[in-house]
Amino acid sequence: MTTSNHLLIVGSIAFDDLDLPTGEHRDVAGGAATYAALAASLLLRDGVRVVGVVGEDFPAGVLDAMKARGIDAGGVERATGKTFRWHGRYSADLASRTTLDTQLNVFADFRPQIPPSQRTSPFVLLGNIHPALQLDVLGQLQRPKLVAADTMNFWIEREPASLGELLSRIDLLVINDEEARQLSGIHNLVRAAEDIRRRGPRMLVVKRGEFGALLFDGAGPFFVPAYPLEEIVDPTGAGDSFAGGLMGYLAARGDLSPGSIRCAMFFASALGSLCVEAVGPARLLAANRSHLAARIASFAKLVDHGGDLALPT
Amino acid sequence: MTTSNHLLIVGSIAFDDLDLPTGEHRDVAGGAATYAALAASLLLRDGVRVVGVVGEDFPAGVLDAMKARGIDAGGVERATGKTFRWHGRYSADLASRTTLDTQLNVFADFRPQIPPSQRTSPFVLLGNIHPALQLDVLGQLQRPKLVAADTMNFWIEREPASLGELLSRIDLLVINDEEARQLSGIHNLVRAAEDIRRRGPRMLVVKRGEFGALLFDGAGPFFVPAYPLEEIVDPTGAGDSFAGGLMGYLAARGDLSPGSIRCAMFFASALGSLCVEAVGPARLLAANRSHLAARIASFAKLVDHGGDLALPT
Repeated sequence: MTTSNHLLIVGSIAFDDLDLPTGEHRDVAGGAATYAALAASLLLRDGVRVVGVVGEDFPAGVLDAMKARGIDAGGVERATGKTFRWHGRYSADLASRTTLDTQLNVFADFRPQIPPSQRTSPFVLLGNIHPALQLDVLGQLQRPKLVAADTMNFWIEREPASLGELLSRIDLLVINDEEARQLSGIHNLVRAAEDIRRRGPRMLVVKRGEFGALLFDGAGPFFVPAYPLEEIVDPTGAGDSFAGGLMGYLAARGDLSPGSIRCAMFFASALGSLCVEAVGPARLLAANRSHLAARIASFAKLVDHGGDLALPT
Repeated sequence: MTTSNHLLIVGSIAFDDLDLPTGEHRDVAGGAATYAALAASLLLRDGVRVVGVVGEDFPAGVLDAMKARGIDAGGVERATGKTFRWHGRYSADLASRTTLDTQLNVFADFRPQIPPSQRTSPFVLLGNIHPALQLDVLGQLQRPKLVAADTMNFWIEREPASLGELLSRIDLLVINDEEARQLSGIHNLVRAAEDIRRRGPRMLVVKRGEFGALLFDGAGPFFVPAYPLEEIVDPTGAGDSFAGGLMGYLAARGDLSPGSIRCAMFFASALGSLCVEAVGPARLLAANRSHLAARIASFAKLVDHGGDLALPT
């Protein structure tokens, strides 16, 4: 691949304390940027760059594992203090979760600095951080080809002005269904998507967890299911793996056609489905391209109707 | 089409009182058999037969409308008394509903009698009635080619023995996700499906409302989305329209291959999506095959990824 296809990912790197129905896990390396980068690296070899911040307590081993996967972690700042920490408890069916504790720590003062060599990255994924910081990152970049962003209810409620400015400057917004409803004030997702796309992003992906994801891009809605797994261990990071897979695929192909974006949705969902098969990013760390290819083949069967949808005579 | 492809539908015919967010509607002709037959008749011309019961108060016009669509309603018994009546209220987002009143009326003593000329029907859809009655219908039939059945939480709780016997004698069970979980006692749908298929039906369809439907048939799971509509007016009957569309397609094609069944899932979902666009069965009554073909074309776009799901190099 050529250097023109680099993907820059900016976002959180964290310790997660996870109370799962199958057990409690502490100090699990996580964060949106971690999941997204690991997912993307399965599709975009030696082209993923991460910008984030960790504290003095974050193990070098995790960053080394990212580097071993060809991820450039040179933009990960190590600051004085502790790493961002999230503690969540999942319901018995894993369908909902409660935040028990959030400690921003070094993330509270995070001001992303994009290394000069990475400012020409053509593909950019802005993880869920303050929209003013997402805008600041955009200001550091030189004519990216495709900018995607995530956000959350907190910013939708409290920072509508800077979020509105961000929306006008990105190509692709990747959020979940409740965020799409909250952002637009419209319950129906088709009309919510029309509203959001009018505010700027020409593409919107609405993630629905175990119910799949919808793409709205002006070429008609497109749907990709979540893969029906026999066992889901830990949903943490699935949405970020989805976003990383989506952008990693697009960067690797360097093709932004509607067909390419529709294929990217499958790789995104496949990476989300791999992510949830183990605690934290363990499955993504263990996965290789053969595993991903096998999952994609299963996905193809999941939706392959054989092509003949004519009415019977 | 040949007479060998007839579809027999046995189930409820009802008056529904519908409290929708958009208004209250009274005496809406409905019932599982009504929705299923109307949906199937768009795919299987002059081949759908309905067996059910109505009271003296049920308007001839509704049965005439079915006949005008080529549905044989000769097996609909008119009994002394009032028609089965259901009163439900939907939540503002239409995602849930509460039963306010159920009056079984003539349905309480319903003992389906299959007209002798219909006992060789090769395709059979047993709507949600007492499993002992579903079994009784099967006893009246001569070697059907494909038997599908629906059921509900009430029978799962109270009639496990006769329901178990029914499961051992049908080919296809069409239920929703909560029913699949309740029937199997397993939350994970993949494992729930394995459990249910071990009890008899070689095929299981799990309906998930606005989140689509899953087919489990031993050839790997298959998923079809619900069509993302700009406006949903009334979800009543969508699941029955789905089941009717599924069986109508299979009867019309007379082909039970995995490919045919996967195509049938799209027609099923398309008919469910048409159903919810108006109050009661109004949209199904107004729809013709051109409307269905247009919806199927939109569906094809919704899932068409272009066929190339190779990993980018």
